[in-house]
Amino acid sequence: MLKGRSLIDIEDFSISELDEIFDLAINIIDNPQDYTHICDGKLMSSLFFEPSTRTRLSFEAAMNRLGGRVVGFAESSSSSTAKGESLADTIRVSSSYSDITVMRHPKEGSALHALETCQTPLINAGDGGHQHPTQTLTDLLTIKVAKNKFENLTVGLCGDLKFGRTVHSLISAMKRYQGTKFYLISPPELKLPEYILDELTEEHIDFEEVETIESVIGKLDILYMTRVQKERFFNEADYVRLKDFYILDEEKMQLAKKDLIVLHPLPRVNEIKTEVDKDDRAWYFKQAVYGMYVRMALICKLLGVK
Amino acid sequence: MLKGRSLIDIEDFSISELDEIFDLAINIIDNPQDYTHICDGKLMSSLFFEPSTRTRLSFEAAMNRLGGRVVGFAESSSSSTAKGESLADTIRVSSSYSDITVMRHPKEGSALHALETCQTPLINAGDGGHQHPTQTLTDLLTIKVAKNKFENLTVGLCGDLKFGRTVHSLISAMKRYQGTKFYLISPPELKLPEYILDELTEEHIDFEEVETIESVIGKLDILYMTRVQKERFFNEADYVRLKDFYILDEEKMQLAKKDLIVLHPLPRVNEIKTEVDKDDRAWYFKQAVYGMYVRMALICKLLGVK
Amino acid sequence: MLKGRSLIDIEDFSISELDEIFDLAINIIDNPQDYTHICDGKLMSSLFFEPSTRTRLSFEAAMNRLGGRVVGFAESSSSSTAKGESLADTIRVSSSYSDITVMRHPKEGSALHALETCQTPLINAGDGGHQHPTQTLTDLLTIKVAKNKFENLTVGLCGDLKFGRTVHSLISAMKRYQGTKFYLISPPELKLPEYILDELTEEHIDFEEVETIESVIGKLDILYMTRVQKERFFNEADYVRLKDFYILDEEKMQLAKKDLIVLHPLPRVNEIKTEVDKDDRAWYFKQAVYGMYVRMALICKLLGVK
Repeated sequence: MLKGRSLIDIEDFSISELDEIFDLAINIIDNPQDYTHICDGKLMSSLFFEPSTRTRLSFEAAMNRLGGRVVGFAESSSSSTAKGESLADTIRVSSSYSDITVMRHPKEGSALHALETCQTPLINAGDGGHQHPTQTLTDLLTIKVAKNKFENLTVGLCGDLKFGRTVHSLISAMKRYQGTKFYLISPPELKLPEYILDELTEEHIDFEEVETIESVIGKLDILYMTRVQKERFFNEADYVRLKDFYILDEEKMQLAKKDLIVLHPLPRVNEIKTEVDKDDRAWYFKQAVYGMYVRMALICKLLGVK
Repeated sequence: MLKGRSLIDIEDFSISELDEIFDLAINIIDNPQDYTHICDGKLMSSLFFEPSTRTRLSFEAAMNRLGGRVVGFAESSSSSTAKGESLADTIRVSSSYSDITVMRHPKEGSALHALETCQTPLINAGDGGHQHPTQTLTDLLTIKVAKNKFENLTVGLCGDLKFGRTVHSLISAMKRYQGTKFYLISPPELKLPEYILDELTEEHIDFEEVETIESVIGKLDILYMTRVQKERFFNEADYVRLKDFYILDEEKMQLAKKDLIVLHPLPRVNEIKTEVDKDDRAWYFKQAVYGMYVRMALICKLLGVK
Repeated sequence: MLKGRSLIDIEDFSISELDEIFDLAINIIDNPQDYTHICDGKLMSSLFFEPSTRTRLSFEAAMNRLGGRVVGFAESSSSSTAKGESLADTIRVSSSYSDITVMRHPKEGSALHALETCQTPLINAGDGGHQHPTQTLTDLLTIKVAKNKFENLTVGLCGDLKFGRTVHSLISAMKRYQGTKFYLISPPELKLPEYILDELTEEHIDFEEVETIESVIGKLDILYMTRVQKERFFNEADYVRLKDFYILDEEKMQLAKKDLIVLHPLPRVNEIKTEVDKDDRAWYFKQAVYGMYVRMALICKLLGVK
């Protein structure tokens, strides 16, 4: 039963609850006209304390496509936090106008904190380096559509595995399915944090750390590319040295399986060359659209309208 | 007849016109489903030349909950005033796209000025230190719901009585009802301005100036707390010395009547301790929700849809 | 057939396609109630990489008045371009959530560039000094309503003819009609660019360059005034010297025909004195409203809903 629940961390939902969401999302994709008025009279508070166009537009498009309405702000300069109000109070009041609340905040743990005073179901749309569960829903729905299963998949994760919260969340989600094998592709400086490696080991999850895309791309069902975010680096020199390290191009794609899918949480900078966009295995733009559909399904489920 | 009228100053409306609005608001609270499409096809221009999340969200939620639509801006950097256009022209054009206009502006008197070229009913959502009449509607509706009357109430007003426009407006409104008694609780530096005190004296309104909450809280039906706004002070030292002076906590609440209601226009900083939030007499968060309902009623009345 | 098309440059549409749009716009003006739900279930992406309140509000009001919905951003600080994403990617993803896309961007040629990855019909809402075709649609609809024809009109264009893209576009559009005569009224420094003068000469269009409003106002059917935009000048001194040169006032209006119409793309600064606003021949505020109606018609046509 998802009605009235909140989504702070992808692990808040069981595998069967996730399946419920994906099944609904696929039904929406197939029959969009059945859903254009399903949230009639419902209001979403869209509270972005940190700008994130893509995520915000995806949520607001989702709610509007369901016939619901949206109020909110796109950055914190427009919020009353500037007047010295606590986050708890801002959330309490903003959520009290609406039926469901979406929040993005730069501070880790802020979503859980907001949950204490939120008057509606709350969706965490990213809290600092911590969690971004609807990105993981997006990744999973895309995998479901492409592969029609979650079991026995070989997943390559490439780029910034140290700071990349979408990578951490996807690992959390995928390791729950049988037969998952991870290839962790990164420079030594951006390796997956020790505590996640330890968890994988303890839980007997099959994984391998490698240094190049070429060495493993032929084995992969899924290649998850990530952006090397400048703001995660301590100094400019490290950033410049590392950012171009793991760039996917058509030459590397020639080594891959025919049914590989390439995912990326977007925005990309240059870690995937635009020449790859035309490759049928490039699923990252489709993935962005699935992000809207999975949010539609999530909103319906938390509001209990379907 | 409120259809087609504007609201610049709370005194624009007679007591019986206010009652019409409150009666409709209470009907909306009781039967929200009857109002979800009542403003179908109507458009609101929401023009915030100064950010004010709470007020803006409250208005935009109100219009959306009535089935109407909203266009506008959340701060003036996004407005064409930046290109040297006069306020009169900006209002004239922006309002000409819509059926009702809401304006917030940092300059005193700007709402009255905007009325000259506004092509629709205009609602003043705050013009500098001058007026904020929908906050007063909010305060009054909350009193109406809690007390079911406006007569013979003892009202304590606490904090910044000098610059607090919501206090000035609430006094204007409440003094029109029989048997109102005001306790004005503030440090000497932030006393109610002389001209308002003179008006109260001339009109034979019962009031008393006191320096502490404790000395009068036991007599009050309503305690209206206000924020000490940093931007109202001439220097930092004065602000620091005064801001913590009048803080409401559970200890003081123990001296109050069982049916006291505590109001606050919000945002609060620290003038009400969070421990008070759980007290049944803390009505300030409910008050924020009534703010949305009273705006729904006001919009309906000015548009003449109910 | 306009369904599925984009509008980058006013010359993308033939005269008969323009007529289709104007006919629909006039029908909407006469029967607005027939159109309040025609875009039900449709979503517009409103992507303003550069603030432009008037244009944005006009588009968003248009879509809302058709029953459609809008998502987007009002300035680029809120967009993911800030994270290093290419315009092509931003457009690709943002447009993939919606059914129609409106874009404003400070860079010339950006609209054509965006068209390559846009997943929906694209409307150019201004790309730098280059094109602003919906302003031209607005100008033409106003002329159509006022004059009920496009042929044999004498058009005065006044002010900044060098940098004023709305002037260039209006000339492109009007020169396609028989019997158009242009009077180009500007200081020498802000004359129409040589290449446009050459085009007019080659195409045997009747035009004359003059230096004062007074010398020609008596001959005009249409006087198109423009703002002297500070940001177009290379130095402050030139701006100060020129900006007040071509100011329309009631004294000059007395020399004009009874059925002259004065247009202005707005915002105006001081190039039209406010005393002119009350003159029946001042059509610039009506023109702004026609801007909303013509955008409603354009949206309907590109979406193929009418």
